[in-house]
Amino acid sequence: MSATAEVMSGEFDQAAVVAEPLPPVVGGGAVDSGVEEEEGEQKSKGRGQIVLGRNVHTSCLAVTEPEANDEFTGDKEAYMASVLARYRKTLMERTKHHLGYPYNLDFDYGALAQLQHFSINNLGDPFIESNYGVHSRQFEVGVLDWFARLWEIEKTKYWGYITNCGTEGNLHGILVGREVFPEGILYASRESHYSVFKAARMYRMECVKVGTLVSGEIDCADFRANLQANKDKPAIINVNIGTTVKGAVDDLDLVIQTLEESGFTHDRFYIHCDGALFGLMMPFVKRAPKVSFKKPIGSVSVSGHKFVGCPMPCGVQITRMEHINALSRNVEYLASRDATIMGSRNGHAPIFLWYTLNRKGYKGFQKEVQKCLRNAHYLKDRLRGAGISAMLNELSSTVVFERPLDEEFVRMWQLACEGNIAHAVVMPNVTIEKLDVFLNELVEKRSGWYGEGRGEPPCVAGDLGSENCDCGLHK
Amino acid sequence: MSATAEVMSGEFDQAAVVAEPLPPVVGGGAVDSGVEEEEGEQKSKGRGQIVLGRNVHTSCLAVTEPEANDEFTGDKEAYMASVLARYRKTLMERTKHHLGYPYNLDFDYGALAQLQHFSINNLGDPFIESNYGVHSRQFEVGVLDWFARLWEIEKTKYWGYITNCGTEGNLHGILVGREVFPEGILYASRESHYSVFKAARMYRMECVKVGTLVSGEIDCADFRANLQANKDKPAIINVNIGTTVKGAVDDLDLVIQTLEESGFTHDRFYIHCDGALFGLMMPFVKRAPKVSFKKPIGSVSVSGHKFVGCPMPCGVQITRMEHINALSRNVEYLASRDATIMGSRNGHAPIFLWYTLNRKGYKGFQKEVQKCLRNAHYLKDRLRGAGISAMLNELSSTVVFERPLDEEFVRMWQLACEGNIAHAVVMPNVTIEKLDVFLNELVEKRSGWYGEGRGEPPCVAGDLGSENCDCGLHK
Repeated sequence: MSATAEVMSGEFDQAAVVAEPLPPVVGGGAVDSGVEEEEGEQKSKGRGQIVLGRNVHTSCLAVTEPEANDEFTGDKEAYMASVLARYRKTLMERTKHHLGYPYNLDFDYGALAQLQHFSINNLGDPFIESNYGVHSRQFEVGVLDWFARLWEIEKTKYWGYITNCGTEGNLHGILVGREVFPEGILYASRESHYSVFKAARMYRMECVKVGTLVSGEIDCADFRANLQANKDKPAIINVNIGTTVKGAVDDLDLVIQTLEESGFTHDRFYIHCDGALFGLMMPFVKRAPKVSFKKPIGSVSVSGHKFVGCPMPCGVQITRMEHINALSRNVEYLASRDATIMGSRNGHAPIFLWYTLNRKGYKGFQKEVQKCLRNAHYLKDRLRGAGISAMLNELSSTVVFERPLDEEFVRMWQLACEGNIAHAVVMPNVTIEKLDVFLNELVEKRSGWYGEGRGEPPCVAGDLGSENCDCGLHK
Repeated sequence: MSATAEVMSGEFDQAAVVAEPLPPVVGGGAVDSGVEEEEGEQKSKGRGQIVLGRNVHTSCLAVTEPEANDEFTGDKEAYMASVLARYRKTLMERTKHHLGYPYNLDFDYGALAQLQHFSINNLGDPFIESNYGVHSRQFEVGVLDWFARLWEIEKTKYWGYITNCGTEGNLHGILVGREVFPEGILYASRESHYSVFKAARMYRMECVKVGTLVSGEIDCADFRANLQANKDKPAIINVNIGTTVKGAVDDLDLVIQTLEESGFTHDRFYIHCDGALFGLMMPFVKRAPKVSFKKPIGSVSVSGHKFVGCPMPCGVQITRMEHINALSRNVEYLASRDATIMGSRNGHAPIFLWYTLNRKGYKGFQKEVQKCLRNAHYLKDRLRGAGISAMLNELSSTVVFERPLDEEFVRMWQLACEGNIAHAVVMPNVTIEKLDVFLNELVEKRSGWYGEGRGEPPCVAGDLGSENCDCGLHK
């Protein structure tokens, strides 16, 4: 190749790039550590053990330097293929046994596999072109419009973007709130997602934790008392459209009423709705307090990998154009269009969402919500029927119940636990058949855990209320 | 199905979920707007026009409600397939003509397509198990270990995670710095990435912008003067291992020396290295100031979608275990293991990185770095040979040159521009052949832009130094 030869003879110094020695390579032994081993490692860990500050290195799949003759022998390719095949098997098994997290694992994006070869990046603002041409803004804005209709705000009045996850939505919503009210106090119920309190700390905001009812909803009496004590400062409120643990939906209308009755006019508060899971379900539930920009709210976020389902975490964030303009004016010393939290953004996620929204439509989601609520009732009823403490909030598909004694069982079904309670989130991929397998296994195993001198089931009246508790004292 | 029947007869109220009316649907006309149209829209926008505050809605691909008979007619499926096919064609063309962003577009992850069906989520800390079983921590930690070796820190001494992009790495590194020194001042050269200044604002930190040399490197004389003026407060420094526009590498050793000479002992400063692109290239370049945890640095971040190449943005963040322990102690009122910025994290990205690192190894990256630097020299030499102002920093593959007059040409090659300069980043997928096509087209078109009363090429001496300027005055 003559062009290359020409370069080689130029001023470029080959020696400049030969930095030796290269980092030490990993020993051959590491090649044998595989997925199976990792599973064993997981199982041996026991109940909720936190190993913060200790690296879990025994279970990892080391990256190894290719051997000089790898291309000839094919050993490396074979090794990698075997790791991936075993990993895939693990994923299938783990996906099948999953009840604890609100992820819809039922999706088929085969039609989109053709796009995996592209490095799709929606740098910066969805509504402003960048020079990087390999983007998916046309899909992203289509998805945003769909959510804007759902939450009742006009195209010309909203701004939003597809985020990396629910946390990014909360970080963005609360940042917008802080920029609108730099001296504002952040109010959030103590059952809010941890990212809300993380935001307060990151942003150096004063934060008030508000108490909750047994259901997990924000306690508006306590909220009112806190507002009274801080009347001089604007309020930024995180409203949970579905709490993480109990799936409780804060009463948005009552929150607004409490603010108004406490003397907070609309120009002195900002409401961010954290709709991680239920932000997409509530619009289809008749009795739910409607999430709508016709009400005095500032932003709504929802996760895309939860009710919609997506191979990787993502989310949707919608706010009012007026707020984002204020934010952007403030950052004029930056690249003027920097209104997102992240700079580079996954361009595949909007296409996954676009694909599913198009296929299902509002009607399809309505049907799925109906199915999930029905199946959640089934699960709760059967638990109570078997004498197991359980609670299901009216507007929720999250069934909270007595924590299973056996940690192995908890891990197998990937239940999220907190203290004496566990929960299962009934998503579109959770069928009656799957629930029956789970229930039968639970009932059978549980009969061996308690009674005949082996102790009693835990009392969960403090978590779920005595009416939902089936312990010796309350049943 | 008897189980379902049983539920239907229970207390569950079907009517609860029939919230009507559903949001209004998009008219049929929107179905016709496609990718081609969007391209036209892009082209008509002209030079760097920023439309902040205006929604770009004419070009989006609307989500439409399925018709009742769609499953029967197959119209919707056919429409979506045609949109995707056209989009894929656009992506291929756009990927082929791309020089401006430091993304390696040359990858083949066909072997990983089998994993797209899974919702892989590495919630929270990479080193701490969560109950969600569909994760890829074993790959993530393998990748982190590889980078830890590269940057010379022991397995037991580091903490890190795979981020969503370079911005998240900077947000994390600077947050750790602030938690270590709550009263610290953030210093960053004015050519630092905008995310650094965004972090200062988000975190309510005092921030000092330090001047730069013509090369784009931090001006350590100015840095020294600023340190002298703020001796009473600890220093948090963002060091650029490759600036965004000029690819300039800040002299880490000189920065440390300046701190020490200004009386800042190691317990009074924190250095975050923003190695977005070059963090992975510099270790293989002999004369480069080495990024190493053997030096008094606190954290390093690098992008995964840049030199490595990945379908979606991602990055690697490594810091010292002692710092993350301090951070985690501080957040004990949160979920105790919340040490990342994002909560849910893309579990596919670590597998992409793991796959490429395994295939290429340190030796493979060394070869690619060599090729990139060589090809960048070729590009710079040919530009200068054609009488076009151009600059290439010694340790860089980013060639900065006179901004092409024709915005159409800029868009075609997706060049990143700032004022009178443009740049091309020579990545592993940029071959001599591709550069020749670009150069020939540029030289041919440029001959029509200037001379014979049509104006002169711009002077870029202010940006690139007079020795690199080929304008009428300086050549």
